[in-house]
Amino acid sequence: MKLIIGNKAYSSWSLRGWLACKQAGVSFEEVVVPLYDAEWDRRRQGDEFAPSSGKVPILWDGDAVVWDSLAIVEYLADKVGRDRFWPADDAARAMARSMAAEMHSSFQALRRKHPMNIRQIHPPARPDEDVMVDIARIMELWAQARARFGGSGDFLFGDFGAADIMFAPVVTRFVTYQLPVARFAAAYMEAILTHRWMQDWIAGAQEEEWVLERYEQAAGA
Amino acid sequence: MKLIIGNKAYSSWSLRGWLACKQAGVSFEEVVVPLYDAEWDRRRQGDEFAPSSGKVPILWDGDAVVWDSLAIVEYLADKVGRDRFWPADDAARAMARSMAAEMHSSFQALRRKHPMNIRQIHPPARPDEDVMVDIARIMELWAQARARFGGSGDFLFGDFGAADIMFAPVVTRFVTYQLPVARFAAAYMEAILTHRWMQDWIAGAQEEEWVLERYEQAAGA
Repeated sequence: MKLIIGNKAYSSWSLRGWLACKQAGVSFEEVVVPLYDAEWDRRRQGDEFAPSSGKVPILWDGDAVVWDSLAIVEYLADKVGRDRFWPADDAARAMARSMAAEMHSSFQALRRKHPMNIRQIHPPARPDEDVMVDIARIMELWAQARARFGGSGDFLFGDFGAADIMFAPVVTRFVTYQLPVARFAAAYMEAILTHRWMQDWIAGAQEEEWVLERYEQAAGA
Repeated sequence: MKLIIGNKAYSSWSLRGWLACKQAGVSFEEVVVPLYDAEWDRRRQGDEFAPSSGKVPILWDGDAVVWDSLAIVEYLADKVGRDRFWPADDAARAMARSMAAEMHSSFQALRRKHPMNIRQIHPPARPDEDVMVDIARIMELWAQARARFGGSGDFLFGDFGAADIMFAPVVTRFVTYQLPVARFAAAYMEAILTHRWMQDWIAGAQEEEWVLERYEQAAGA
């Protein structure tokens, strides 16, 4: 299998696809294509990007290609067994799937106004009202999942799984922009950020020295 | 099982959840809560709406609750068997899952500027450029699915399935706003619109006489 991703510092969808491959326990070739770069412009015209019309992540598995992070989760769950990604209990899985899908379609204000940037920490500032609404809803979802189904585990449904994969980029946004989260959320965010795969990804983002310069050029900074 | 939905004329997410229940072949109680109405305002404060924070559709199955259309598809696929919703072939399923997920997260311009309204036909007008980009991408997806995996069937992957469920509301938008679609798409759209469940849904929307008046009041028309 081959997973094509964007920069680890910025590409929140790529982080999800990459965590899904890790969670599946499959071996995969990781191809990082730098955004904001001539290499990106060249490669995204090629056949390997054709199915997604130029977006990342893209998972190639023989002649099967999956180009969306939630679809990558489900495709890999088909391959290695659903229980590795989703809770076995019907009520827990119903909630996990609903939360993952809501994350996939919603929280536009948070995502647009606070883009993922693992390499930075911004001074705290009062977020816009629409962002506050998004944060409140995420807190509600996390609280309910943890209370009903977290058990003695550190993650939303106990063990690390698909719901955590979908919310992992949000955790980094909360940190980067020092957004006002509920007190209970700190322990969950800590569990996400200290997970060994997140540590690997964050280390990878820090090593992308070449990224920062090009990003700032692109942004006109 | 109980499925709570909004008006059949306007609620595109509800259409998906309802088609998913039909596709599963399960028996379910259908509860229509009128949007733009005091009844809606009252009921969405209640416990049955709590998990979704007031959004539809919501599927209740014992103590399991699923509040997102794509999650409803996957929850029901778990229950009745994946093959009823998704292609069995890996490459076809990879594409079907990717398309469904892309529909779920994308095409914001089309969805915002051309809301579903099954009861109306608007005169054709040149869509905005961002809508044209969305339409072009949808045409590309439909063409590829039909060419690679449609076989002798009428639908995206041959038989009616999850990908068709996710795109069904878009078909009605194309009709309502007489949007410029590719020539090949006409046969697929016809297959969707004449499917017996779509016919039932459209008939239901036409019967919502009470809706139109309240909607126009709410819109200040």
